[in-house]
Amino acid sequence: MIEYANLVRLQNPPTVAAWSSVVGKKEGEGPLGACFDAVEQDAYFGKETWEQAESELQHRTLALLTEKSRIQPAEISCIFAGDLVNQCTSSTYALRHLDIPYLGIFGACATFAEGILLASVMQSGMSLPRCAVLTSSHYSSAERQFRFPLSYGGQRTPNAQWTCTAAGAVMLSPTDQPPYIRGVCAGRIRDQGITDASNMGAAMAPAAADTIARYLSATRSRPADYDAIVTGDLGLVGSRLLMQLMEQNGYDLRGVHRDCGVMMFDGKTQDTHAGGSGCGCSASIICGYFLPKLQSGEMRNVLYAATGALLSPMICQQGESIPGICHLVHFSHESGKENDA
Amino acid sequence: MIEYANLVRLQNPPTVAAWSSVVGKKEGEGPLGACFDAVEQDAYFGKETWEQAESELQHRTLALLTEKSRIQPAEISCIFAGDLVNQCTSSTYALRHLDIPYLGIFGACATFAEGILLASVMQSGMSLPRCAVLTSSHYSSAERQFRFPLSYGGQRTPNAQWTCTAAGAVMLSPTDQPPYIRGVCAGRIRDQGITDASNMGAAMAPAAADTIARYLSATRSRPADYDAIVTGDLGLVGSRLLMQLMEQNGYDLRGVHRDCGVMMFDGKTQDTHAGGSGCGCSASIICGYFLPKLQSGEMRNVLYAATGALLSPMICQQGESIPGICHLVHFSHESGKENDA
Repeated sequence: MIEYANLVRLQNPPTVAAWSSVVGKKEGEGPLGACFDAVEQDAYFGKETWEQAESELQHRTLALLTEKSRIQPAEISCIFAGDLVNQCTSSTYALRHLDIPYLGIFGACATFAEGILLASVMQSGMSLPRCAVLTSSHYSSAERQFRFPLSYGGQRTPNAQWTCTAAGAVMLSPTDQPPYIRGVCAGRIRDQGITDASNMGAAMAPAAADTIARYLSATRSRPADYDAIVTGDLGLVGSRLLMQLMEQNGYDLRGVHRDCGVMMFDGKTQDTHAGGSGCGCSASIICGYFLPKLQSGEMRNVLYAATGALLSPMICQQGESIPGICHLVHFSHESGKENDA
Repeated sequence: MIEYANLVRLQNPPTVAAWSSVVGKKEGEGPLGACFDAVEQDAYFGKETWEQAESELQHRTLALLTEKSRIQPAEISCIFAGDLVNQCTSSTYALRHLDIPYLGIFGACATFAEGILLASVMQSGMSLPRCAVLTSSHYSSAERQFRFPLSYGGQRTPNAQWTCTAAGAVMLSPTDQPPYIRGVCAGRIRDQGITDASNMGAAMAPAAADTIARYLSATRSRPADYDAIVTGDLGLVGSRLLMQLMEQNGYDLRGVHRDCGVMMFDGKTQDTHAGGSGCGCSASIICGYFLPKLQSGEMRNVLYAATGALLSPMICQQGESIPGICHLVHFSHESGKENDA
């Protein structure tokens, strides 16, 4: 392990041995619809409340993961899980009967990368054989908790993002086959004084710029060394801001930057304003779109910089600004072990 | 590293290099009042809202930690932090201007042990030199979020626990001096169908019994091998239940079991019913009471089994039962390296 100013380059890069993704109807109708393992037409997922629906979404995503990895839930060494619902109950209730050692995490929409970071450290550093990560978001549970109940029929601002109904899960193992996790970098909180809870992209972009620049600088790499530098869900507004901030740092992200919030929906026909958001947005796209390309070798190196707006409705009502955070994971088709030798 | 059925025995046991604790007025008037680094008389901590007060409580606890450890915030490799306020905002707002890589965690009242577990793995497995953990709870922010606004003047049930205004923080380092962290064990969710949100002790006791029994069994140790087996905050009701559950598993905890929820207040004079609770309850007592004794050698081995009720008010209103969890940390005056050799 080499420490580069608070980031971790993994000496024994864990393999992403399996992944799964489940999304809702609207996400299934988007440009990436065919990438996901399953698309559910019923927003309630057969349950009675939005919170139960989101737990069921996680439950199905994990069931697919265990099926694809041929690992029983009881064989999982530990699982990192989290979501946007208060007290992370979507995760808790999805996992409560499964006997898996459970470590709850909260990083807002950066939760999936935070989980992969911690699972990588657990796997690589402690040799735990099967570490899983699971996150989700649901449009309806998030809307009523963070903004308005759906039945209120509130107008959405042009900068607003659409919380995706989606979940993603990965299983890390020491198996020596791609895709590998080469490095991880924990984010620092950035707060530039944004107080508009409808403009999360702007609140998160400085955190993304900070983490990506720190990783590039510490690893002495350039944006062109990667097939894609993927932000979680900055949306259209935050993505433009990220390009500007990175340019100020001397990095040109043109041609290499992708944003999951922008990728999830067709902005012209799906009325999603600045794009998608939510823990499940980048989780499902990493699992549905990027990991298969990293496995096949169509992509060799991808930086996944998941962004989170650490806001609480109550704190926003008290006039506080919105802190942003961004955790980074470096996925690669190569283990990089030759380079270290 | 040796894996004992999902738990981790640390080969390079990290040292708890420094610790700090800050509590509120009522906690300062309890039997352990003299143990804490600071007692604040003003429930608002000089701020305008309960949420800001709790952030300030965390901020001061971290300031004491950096002062005692002679480490600047910017030198901290990473910090694990969490609390009970929705979206963990007490932690986020306490840390937002400090430039420390921040990993948000949620384990309800088990958060401090979850943080120490993860920081231990990060320190021991990845050789990150300075990993910190910080958690808090505040009576007033918790009451209005989980139960009723204080001004409502609701009656408390006999089984209810009193959320402590308290915070604790530790700094882990590879320095070779006591107290050490010998092992950790991530909890599994236990849910026995308890639906009374005023009886969290009963909801958490099965999780405590599960984790403690797993650790004792896997390490082939007995309760008598420890100076204390400390539960987070089961309170009087949950503690009685734990004794019974452990007895059914063939373990006698009499004489060795301590509960931070019971220790924090004088039940006869302080009107706290079943005892204290909250992320800050066991965090402040571990830092104020147990770590000094483990450092001096007055205690040689302590199991810290922090318990959390993973409830959300909304899920409880939907009729769901309360899942419990318990994460364990084994503190020791000895590193145990001789035994491994």
